Amino acid sequence: TTQVINCKAAIAWEAGKPFSVEEIEVAPPKEHEIRVKIVATGLCRTDAHAMNPCFKEGLFPVILGHEGAGIVESVGPGVTKFKPGDKVIPLYMPQCGQCKFCLSPKTNLCDKISKVKTPISDQDLMLDGTSSTFSEYTVVGENSLAKIDAAAPLDKVCLIGCGFSTGYGAAINTAKVEPGSSCAVFGLGGVGLSAVMGCKAAGASRIFGIDINKDKFALAKELGATDCLNPLDFQKPIHKVINEMTNGGVDCPIECIGTIDTMKAALDCTTVDWGTCAIVGAAVGGQAFPVSPMQLIMGRKINATFFGGHVECVPKLVLDYMAFNLLQEGKSNQTVLVFKGSA
Amino acid sequence: TTQVINCKAAIAWEAGKPFSVEEIEVAPPKEHEIRVKIVATGLCRTDAHAMNPCFKEGLFPVILGHEGAGIVESVGPGVTKFKPGDKVIPLYMPQCGQCKFCLSPKTNLCDKISKVKTPISDQDLMLDGTSSTFSEYTVVGENSLAKIDAAAPLDKVCLIGCGFSTGYGAAINTAKVEPGSSCAVFGLGGVGLSAVMGCKAAGASRIFGIDINKDKFALAKELGATDCLNPLDFQKPIHKVINEMTNGGVDCPIECIGTIDTMKAALDCTTVDWGTCAIVGAAVGGQAFPVSPMQLIMGRKINATFFGGHVECVPKLVLDYMAFNLLQEGKSNQTVLVFKGSA
Repeated sequence: TTQVINCKAAIAWEAGKPFSVEEIEVAPPKEHEIRVKIVATGLCRTDAHAMNPCFKEGLFPVILGHEGAGIVESVGPGVTKFKPGDKVIPLYMPQCGQCKFCLSPKTNLCDKISKVKTPISDQDLMLDGTSSTFSEYTVVGENSLAKIDAAAPLDKVCLIGCGFSTGYGAAINTAKVEPGSSCAVFGLGGVGLSAVMGCKAAGASRIFGIDINKDKFALAKELGATDCLNPLDFQKPIHKVINEMTNGGVDCPIECIGTIDTMKAALDCTTVDWGTCAIVGAAVGGQAFPVSPMQLIMGRKINATFFGGHVECVPKLVLDYMAFNLLQEGKSNQTVLVFKGSA
Repeated sequence: TTQVINCKAAIAWEAGKPFSVEEIEVAPPKEHEIRVKIVATGLCRTDAHAMNPCFKEGLFPVILGHEGAGIVESVGPGVTKFKPGDKVIPLYMPQCGQCKFCLSPKTNLCDKISKVKTPISDQDLMLDGTSSTFSEYTVVGENSLAKIDAAAPLDKVCLIGCGFSTGYGAAINTAKVEPGSSCAVFGLGGVGLSAVMGCKAAGASRIFGIDINKDKFALAKELGATDCLNPLDFQKPIHKVINEMTNGGVDCPIECIGTIDTMKAALDCTTVDWGTCAIVGAAVGGQAFPVSPMQLIMGRKINATFFGGHVECVPKLVLDYMAFNLLQEGKSNQTVLVFKGSA
């Protein structure tokens, strides 16, 4: 386990350019580090953000990827919680378990990440800048890894490393959807479909699914959406359509796209009095969306989510998946790379 | 009680012009209405907003004023909760007690107000467009009036009708200040000083008071502020000063001014992970403040307040005032009109 491993990785040399699959060297794990053989990894919109030339904070070259699952290959000195052969999911947010934030029930943001300026740049997320999942092998700190059930299918549960957890948790933890409430999910990709599932699981009685690609509607309805709307089908802005259909807006709009326009639309169809608008998508380029104080004064809230607000949830979500097969229906809507000969 | 009363009132004939004190006729109360002799009334920044030419929704002519206290002069048919001689405070937000919002603990915004487009225009707030407090007599609906203790000094407790309740409640109910937390109150007028008192009462250990008028600092410190800052004393923006002094921001900034710039400053000095930025001021002219999704994703929340988030609080706040004399120190920082011969 003290050997350097030579393997392939998808390297991003500069913003806006395709990945280049090249041979790299992966060093052995140092103290409190674990070297993981990545078996499968999802492609997240945030990876596209990090590659976007508008995202000025990105450092290149970089190996991206943060939605992986794999098997522990070797462990460095001092590692006690992991051993070779364990199935694991790397965590893009560390959980040191000791800082005041980890010890508080009010947040899932560990102190190690909250001081970071640009959390959607993968270089900052890992304590070790060389660590990411678009590689056959990677090395991560022990606080950035979750051990999961030995029987878990890695090509499915890798999505629990980001997309599924984020969307599902946005409904459950961030919007705090309640039984009988109304929701609107903007964007029906992997995160949005997971949000639909979260709304359904929380007992929402009306779930709007909004996307400009109507091919996504059948699956969204299968997963719980009651009304699917294509903004291109309407003359008026989609928030007005929803406001008219609901007599003033929904309890919990959930924005899963990451554009300023859809964030604004989500806030604009949030009901007065007690509506909570959940922001899941991250916009690149330092863009801001305009919030009128009067919208907030009338009782609307805006909450955003990081990893769906989950606290140490990964092993449990994997078990839930295995028990209820929650993700199965969603797999075709999010791309997963399975490493050759690994699955 | 069926007579029209002739009395004086401060009429706003058009935006941007001084009030004109003129004789008006006040009709007797109709069904479920009460005619009140106003004894004292505060002047609220919102009154100035309603007079601002930038506030396009204002209807003129209008008798403004929503921070009054008085005595019931007569009651209309069907009124059972009030009788002539009762001391009362008009409520600028009705509480019908029967709609789904009144029956929910999640909001203090009655259905009758939540459907209103421009709640800071007094015409919309009262169910009867003729009703306001810059008049010796006014008529209000029974859902828009709170009976208070017979011994209450009306020239003091009128502030409970808006300013004190809003600022104090913003700290307690909206920002949900916790023992040991850090706060920053932007603006040290009547609302801001009340917010300082709320932070102190909630057990905050550090309370920044921010104002460009340093004459307000002595009283703010007496009421609980631990650090008073004048933005004019610094080269860098005040949010940067606070972030440096607190190693990253405070738990609960409370904006009590009503400008887009101070709202932005308040959000910009909200700590990551669990900070809640409370917006109390209302900006006129449909202005919006820019919110970066990344600020929210890092765990910051923005909550705004309407009447301090209080639910049916007015009689209790009056009793609290009489018991603890909370307001006394603050009276010189908010202007109260006492009607001649009434106090």
